[in-house]
Amino acid sequence: MRNFLDQDFLLQTRTAQQLYHEYAAGMPIIDYHNHLPPVEIAANKQFRTMTEIWLKGDHYKWRAMRTRGIDENYITGDADDYTKFKVWAETVPYTMRNPLYHWTHLELKKPFGITGLLNADSAEKIYRQCNEQLPSLPVHALLEQFKVEVLCTTDDPADNLEHHLALKQKGMGIKVFPAFRPDKAMAVEDPVAYNAYLDHLSAASDTSISSYQLLLDVLKKRHDFFHETGCRVSDHGLETMYADDFTLAELEASFQKIRKGEKLGEQAVRQFKSATLHFICEWNAARGWAQQFHIGALRNNNTRLLQRLGADAGVDSIGDWSVAQPMSAFFNRLDKENKLAKTIIYNNNPSHNAVYATMIGNFQDGITPGKIQFGSGWWFLDQKDGMEQQINTLSNMGLLSLFVGMITDSRSFLSFPRHEYFRRILCNLIGNDVENGELPHDIKWLGKMVQDICYYNAKRYFNLQ
Amino acid sequence: MRNFLDQDFLLQTRTAQQLYHEYAAGMPIIDYHNHLPPVEIAANKQFRTMTEIWLKGDHYKWRAMRTRGIDENYITGDADDYTKFKVWAETVPYTMRNPLYHWTHLELKKPFGITGLLNADSAEKIYRQCNEQLPSLPVHALLEQFKVEVLCTTDDPADNLEHHLALKQKGMGIKVFPAFRPDKAMAVEDPVAYNAYLDHLSAASDTSISSYQLLLDVLKKRHDFFHETGCRVSDHGLETMYADDFTLAELEASFQKIRKGEKLGEQAVRQFKSATLHFICEWNAARGWAQQFHIGALRNNNTRLLQRLGADAGVDSIGDWSVAQPMSAFFNRLDKENKLAKTIIYNNNPSHNAVYATMIGNFQDGITPGKIQFGSGWWFLDQKDGMEQQINTLSNMGLLSLFVGMITDSRSFLSFPRHEYFRRILCNLIGNDVENGELPHDIKWLGKMVQDICYYNAKRYFNLQ
Amino acid sequence: MRNFLDQDFLLQTRTAQQLYHEYAAGMPIIDYHNHLPPVEIAANKQFRTMTEIWLKGDHYKWRAMRTRGIDENYITGDADDYTKFKVWAETVPYTMRNPLYHWTHLELKKPFGITGLLNADSAEKIYRQCNEQLPSLPVHALLEQFKVEVLCTTDDPADNLEHHLALKQKGMGIKVFPAFRPDKAMAVEDPVAYNAYLDHLSAASDTSISSYQLLLDVLKKRHDFFHETGCRVSDHGLETMYADDFTLAELEASFQKIRKGEKLGEQAVRQFKSATLHFICEWNAARGWAQQFHIGALRNNNTRLLQRLGADAGVDSIGDWSVAQPMSAFFNRLDKENKLAKTIIYNNNPSHNAVYATMIGNFQDGITPGKIQFGSGWWFLDQKDGMEQQINTLSNMGLLSLFVGMITDSRSFLSFPRHEYFRRILCNLIGNDVENGELPHDIKWLGKMVQDICYYNAKRYFNLQ
Repeated sequence: MRNFLDQDFLLQTRTAQQLYHEYAAGMPIIDYHNHLPPVEIAANKQFRTMTEIWLKGDHYKWRAMRTRGIDENYITGDADDYTKFKVWAETVPYTMRNPLYHWTHLELKKPFGITGLLNADSAEKIYRQCNEQLPSLPVHALLEQFKVEVLCTTDDPADNLEHHLALKQKGMGIKVFPAFRPDKAMAVEDPVAYNAYLDHLSAASDTSISSYQLLLDVLKKRHDFFHETGCRVSDHGLETMYADDFTLAELEASFQKIRKGEKLGEQAVRQFKSATLHFICEWNAARGWAQQFHIGALRNNNTRLLQRLGADAGVDSIGDWSVAQPMSAFFNRLDKENKLAKTIIYNNNPSHNAVYATMIGNFQDGITPGKIQFGSGWWFLDQKDGMEQQINTLSNMGLLSLFVGMITDSRSFLSFPRHEYFRRILCNLIGNDVENGELPHDIKWLGKMVQDICYYNAKRYFNLQ
Repeated sequence: MRNFLDQDFLLQTRTAQQLYHEYAAGMPIIDYHNHLPPVEIAANKQFRTMTEIWLKGDHYKWRAMRTRGIDENYITGDADDYTKFKVWAETVPYTMRNPLYHWTHLELKKPFGITGLLNADSAEKIYRQCNEQLPSLPVHALLEQFKVEVLCTTDDPADNLEHHLALKQKGMGIKVFPAFRPDKAMAVEDPVAYNAYLDHLSAASDTSISSYQLLLDVLKKRHDFFHETGCRVSDHGLETMYADDFTLAELEASFQKIRKGEKLGEQAVRQFKSATLHFICEWNAARGWAQQFHIGALRNNNTRLLQRLGADAGVDSIGDWSVAQPMSAFFNRLDKENKLAKTIIYNNNPSHNAVYATMIGNFQDGITPGKIQFGSGWWFLDQKDGMEQQINTLSNMGLLSLFVGMITDSRSFLSFPRHEYFRRILCNLIGNDVENGELPHDIKWLGKMVQDICYYNAKRYFNLQ
Repeated sequence: MRNFLDQDFLLQTRTAQQLYHEYAAGMPIIDYHNHLPPVEIAANKQFRTMTEIWLKGDHYKWRAMRTRGIDENYITGDADDYTKFKVWAETVPYTMRNPLYHWTHLELKKPFGITGLLNADSAEKIYRQCNEQLPSLPVHALLEQFKVEVLCTTDDPADNLEHHLALKQKGMGIKVFPAFRPDKAMAVEDPVAYNAYLDHLSAASDTSISSYQLLLDVLKKRHDFFHETGCRVSDHGLETMYADDFTLAELEASFQKIRKGEKLGEQAVRQFKSATLHFICEWNAARGWAQQFHIGALRNNNTRLLQRLGADAGVDSIGDWSVAQPMSAFFNRLDKENKLAKTIIYNNNPSHNAVYATMIGNFQDGITPGKIQFGSGWWFLDQKDGMEQQINTLSNMGLLSLFVGMITDSRSFLSFPRHEYFRRILCNLIGNDVENGELPHDIKWLGKMVQDICYYNAKRYFNLQ
């Protein structure tokens, strides 16, 4: 019997242990997609309590507590920090077999050095032990402990990137870049929210956005500005993909309609989104950026909690839209123009893994190795089974060796052990294959492959500097 | 090498064996969803032959025999009981790796104590040995042997529940409750069958159902009557979910159209079903019932056999309707009104597991632990791989510890070993995790978790008494 | 630790090794579906270089090389044979965990006896060693080495089958049959290509196809001609299934519209395809053929490469069309008329496995054992995980024992080790079950089952002679 979470956690064979300890563990981290707040990085924020750093923004934990029947007061409400921590600690044993159980203990182990189990009995002691360490763990110290080399945050086109600019000026050791996420610039299904956003973007760009063409002009200028600030990736959250035909006249008509506060029909919404995304992707290609598509989340399902807490409150789930045909058409439209940028597609529904893993093979260009990527297990799939399925499907239907690897996709500075989790899982799968005689026992090559996936592929692919 | 079906069947590790034998095996059974005939329970029916108790209503076995090329005469036709048993026995070795092979031998082992393999050679002997025991195994004795504590059957609103009332009066040790299954009251796609059903319901309720409002009134009265008889669960068989908007005027118009024998359009059918189900769900919430949705079966695919044998003849299969968006909308509509009852969703398509396992997290209310449940592997998924996938998906995306566990969903009094099967699989998964170092070796907590899933969670959740 | 690709490759237990070596390995091969060129079989073609026999038509390898960033010149372009081989050899280590890695080394081992690993270092030596053997390995010698007993190629109705007739006359030891693949006769979505095809078919049949009725007449005559030449299988490539209602008048109107070069609407296209396929299936039933449906590939996604290289260039992927309802309706329409032939459905999307595996159970007729089959893992699913999933899903939801087993589906004479691969995987799964105590240790029965799946079931099912 193995001990829980010991040094060979998830490494079932000697080959896996060798690959992890000798090759993977020491690699720096390029976290090319996350939701860390630039302001907290720039300010080198120091957290006061574990509740603040660990529970405040974590809708995974909220969701688990609600499932256990915990009142919202102890989750997102007015209860004091220790009470909230205590309630979470009581919940932890109920999360066994959920990734929260592993994440929780990996994050206590590193950076806090705590190896005991969190539960009702240990809550007080662990709360105290961690809190005592927080003063010596401001954001920059945390990032250094985790060997973070590069971070890409997620930023709206209207953002002035002041914190990124400040970080650039400071010349911090860890490289921090923005990512261009123009979702709100395409969210035309809600004219009220959309017009408010356009007003905000108008102000940020000092341009009255009175036409679709002006919208494109402004977005393009923000794209240029992001590029100057070091941005080399865009990011797009989509329910599914669309590739409807369009003319500029039609888009202009739709735009004017929305500006008058009128709702577009379903087809016009699709056309508007598809076209606008198409133009942005053209800019991505021209700039040599990598574009990321996060596809398939069904968001804001619970109106009651949405109205109380706003978006990202833990009431999202997995959608089941068809995606193969429109995704193919969308990429093909760009590829025909020779304007398909480096692309990463992230999938939120495990039954679509095979569609994604084979889709990428259609558009490899014979120039950039691994140009089109099937991204790491995302959101609900960011757990051991989900990662194994993503790795195995990519292996079976593409080239695992060229994979750009893991990201945290997190809002928390304590989530970096997910890279360790991923690396252990990766090494374990390869180690099993070797010991079963399904791969040759060529540690040198396999070690190189592991290091490529954990670090070097991303370094070459994004070329962030 | 392990022996087939020995005491540690499916229990690959010592931890699994300990969890099963010391914690799971002794738990009573709460079979909160099945299709057992109340009349046979009330009458304490005694079966004459193994063919009668084992083959007569079992479309799983029929289907396997048809696949083997067996003539219908030996399956559902006029062949004598022994001949039918013999043909089934000959088929058994061909079912290796199908759940039928395990079920068959588990059911021979308990209650009959037979440990040999059923096949052409052993058919005669086993037939005789079992038949000899049947006189001492009437229904009540069987249920006691299996430690059944609670049963919920499946009943139409028009049912007068006479057998349930008789059982209640008798004060039998095993608690038997009806479940409210109003599928026929919503099956408006076929006006002829629907009008016949309404006539039947009119007679049962002593009300001429001449309007939609009267239909609702009658259903509500039957719901009340079921409640008085001890019913605390409803059950709904659906292809997919719908959440179309409606007005009572539209529903009334549709109703009058059907009553004239006219067919409704597709949208009107959806609206009618969705609205009627919505009202019933409101009553479920008001009464504190748990509602079950069995979603995704594609039924009656073979017209030839349907016409010869009627429904449930073994010609159903797995559907692939999209379900995420309408399911979210249906539950949200109830949740917004604060009228979402305890809910269990059962899935028939394994590629939808993740949609279901994440959907439930959207509507947990922070009051009732595990209020919204992803139900146990259903129908075609009621086998080892299917159960493991349901358990693993629920674990990864929700809280396994709050799961209300297994049901037989069966028409046969010999199907209770499926609870044993489930419990072994559950203990095996947890045991593997412990021995791999993925869970802490905390047998006390894990034993409690296993007992909760096998018994106590259901006991608390349904509160059937 | 096991050695890579040794004699017990993929056979993890003693039982698996026994089943494979004593029962499976010696079975002849009935390759009832492939894309081998009849002209090369008839001519007993001799290949000059490994590039010609191994790389020329293999879009799997092309796709991997493009993903690695290799220029098309070295893949399908003008580079010389050795250079192309070298580039492939360099790519091979990057394909670890992809089926290409196993296929490559299985195919070097047999027939060439090479056990070293292919990579940049070994490229030259292995190229020479293989090329030296090619003169003694013309097509017939290759087929004999692999113990091929029966081959079914894939042929258009317009084909004059001259090479099949020549082979028949020669009386070669290996039986080679055509398969009737009328896809082009239904591809009405593109009137230009369709009219060109009809002109070709008109010429081949010496009939001016001026009406839909004449089209049916001609196809029926070609069907008869194929039957006389020994053909007993048809094959159909479909995105999804359709079962639209039709009248001959509507089909005739559609036909005349296409003949004028006009495009049909979406519904008319579906109706035309569905109806024409229905008629062909009726002929299949009348002739006692087996019909194969390859469903779910999303083809020709990359217009740039399609225009440069034509179809089958490695730019196809997995589709996600719904299939359950129309497939049920299509088969039921034939079954109601008592005209449903032996049928094999192949699935290209692993998330649809359960739909296929349960669909077949709806239409078993109680006469022909295993009449409706869920075919072996196809295309992107033709790898270890894909095969295991197909075998496990079929096992759980149908009768594995009646499965007609593996095919190469390949364009290459070196692909026959895929049968060995399949047999090892099959024996391994069964062996694991036995050693885990999930199947009885009845080697005689299990050995028979393995031999049935590898050979005898197909021999009985197709009855090709």
